[in-house]
Amino acid sequence: MPDLIFTPLSGIPLIKPDDDLGGLVASAVKSAGLWLQDSDVLVVAQKVISKAENRFVRLRDVTPSPRAMELAQVTGKDPRLVEVILWDTAEVIRARQYVLIVAHHLGFICANAGVDHSNVGPEDDLVLRLPADPDASARRLRARLQQLTGAAPGVIINDSHGRPWREGTVGMAIGLAGLTPVQDLRGCPDLYGYHLQHTTVGFADQIAAGASLVMGQADEGLPVVLVRGLTCSPAEDISAHQILRPPETDLFR
Amino acid sequence: MPDLIFTPLSGIPLIKPDDDLGGLVASAVKSAGLWLQDSDVLVVAQKVISKAENRFVRLRDVTPSPRAMELAQVTGKDPRLVEVILWDTAEVIRARQYVLIVAHHLGFICANAGVDHSNVGPEDDLVLRLPADPDASARRLRARLQQLTGAAPGVIINDSHGRPWREGTVGMAIGLAGLTPVQDLRGCPDLYGYHLQHTTVGFADQIAAGASLVMGQADEGLPVVLVRGLTCSPAEDISAHQILRPPETDLFR
Repeated sequence: MPDLIFTPLSGIPLIKPDDDLGGLVASAVKSAGLWLQDSDVLVVAQKVISKAENRFVRLRDVTPSPRAMELAQVTGKDPRLVEVILWDTAEVIRARQYVLIVAHHLGFICANAGVDHSNVGPEDDLVLRLPADPDASARRLRARLQQLTGAAPGVIINDSHGRPWREGTVGMAIGLAGLTPVQDLRGCPDLYGYHLQHTTVGFADQIAAGASLVMGQADEGLPVVLVRGLTCSPAEDISAHQILRPPETDLFR
Repeated sequence: MPDLIFTPLSGIPLIKPDDDLGGLVASAVKSAGLWLQDSDVLVVAQKVISKAENRFVRLRDVTPSPRAMELAQVTGKDPRLVEVILWDTAEVIRARQYVLIVAHHLGFICANAGVDHSNVGPEDDLVLRLPADPDASARRLRARLQQLTGAAPGVIINDSHGRPWREGTVGMAIGLAGLTPVQDLRGCPDLYGYHLQHTTVGFADQIAAGASLVMGQADEGLPVVLVRGLTCSPAEDISAHQILRPPETDLFR
């Protein structure tokens, strides 16, 4: 097993709407003295995808609904911010002082529907929504990189989410292209020939978590991490939705 | 930010009770042409710690209690295995056909209280419990490495657990020494000078998850991973318990 190397790409500028993210990533890889390979995985912070896709909202343009007003009262949040959160919310899970945890339309559960106020820009008035379709964003970035470099690496869009039971946010895959989201070990023999009881491994989430270690949270200067040394075969027809447990089969809930 | 490198150490033999794990790890690091540094983190699979600490149980020596018999009926598991699981169980969370999810005495929630039947040995009759005190195991290993090499790296004992909401097991820290389990970013300014809303990062869990990518599940030949390139200051008086959310403050539950 070779070393597994997470290389944060320096030289990615602050991303603006309609930037050619693929072009910027390809240049940053080249500046690092590296060449993209099909077996590489690129982990990209959700925030730069959202910025490139212009998912900004100006709070001054938002009129809060009665439901947003009510939740703003409970949480102490800006009612216009709550309104934006509700745009992306399938179900409110918890609303308390300072806390608004929801099931996102994309299927996962997170604070504030991922709508973010930090690292967004110099204007206090701007917030940023998650990409509308992170799997599609990953596929587009992968296709653009292939066009530019000839290589089609795996792409993971990651975001840091809180978790039940355990403290601290961890990087998770909210969109992906070109790699298996969940590895199935069913039927693989263990070292002594028995069949494994652990059936599936959260492959993409583990990659996203490792990459988050070098992305940092406060520093948006390193939003793209090149991961080299994984043993993974390229996969098609995959989606980060495959990582989401259907509630009816979620025995850990 | 330098590269973050996960090096799986080859040359760790199958571990037997009372093996000098620190000595074997130190030799394996040396064989890899590396020297341990205080800033390194070693991630060690729970299973080799349990084996070195002789946490084996022979099922033929176990007499199931009535409660174990009852849960064996529900889950379809061997009543003697269920009895061993109950030794380490604070609370049964879910019991269904093939499934027994519990709160472990160590505080976390996992399937079968981490009692494992796979990769344990050639005898069908042997199962392996988690280390009795994984933080203490990590501290002992760290002290032994310091004795042998002069360096005191961080040590994480990891195990792969299932999660609510998301498919696939991921590596998590169940014991640690010499590094911060959860990083506190409260008060750190973001790129534009705002204060971050994400307050804490699951630092040790992210390291454990990344290391699991190179440990594999079925292959126990690579149970120790050297992690180099992290920015972390050595920490004392820490415990993996600090990663566990108190249920009363767990808004994600």
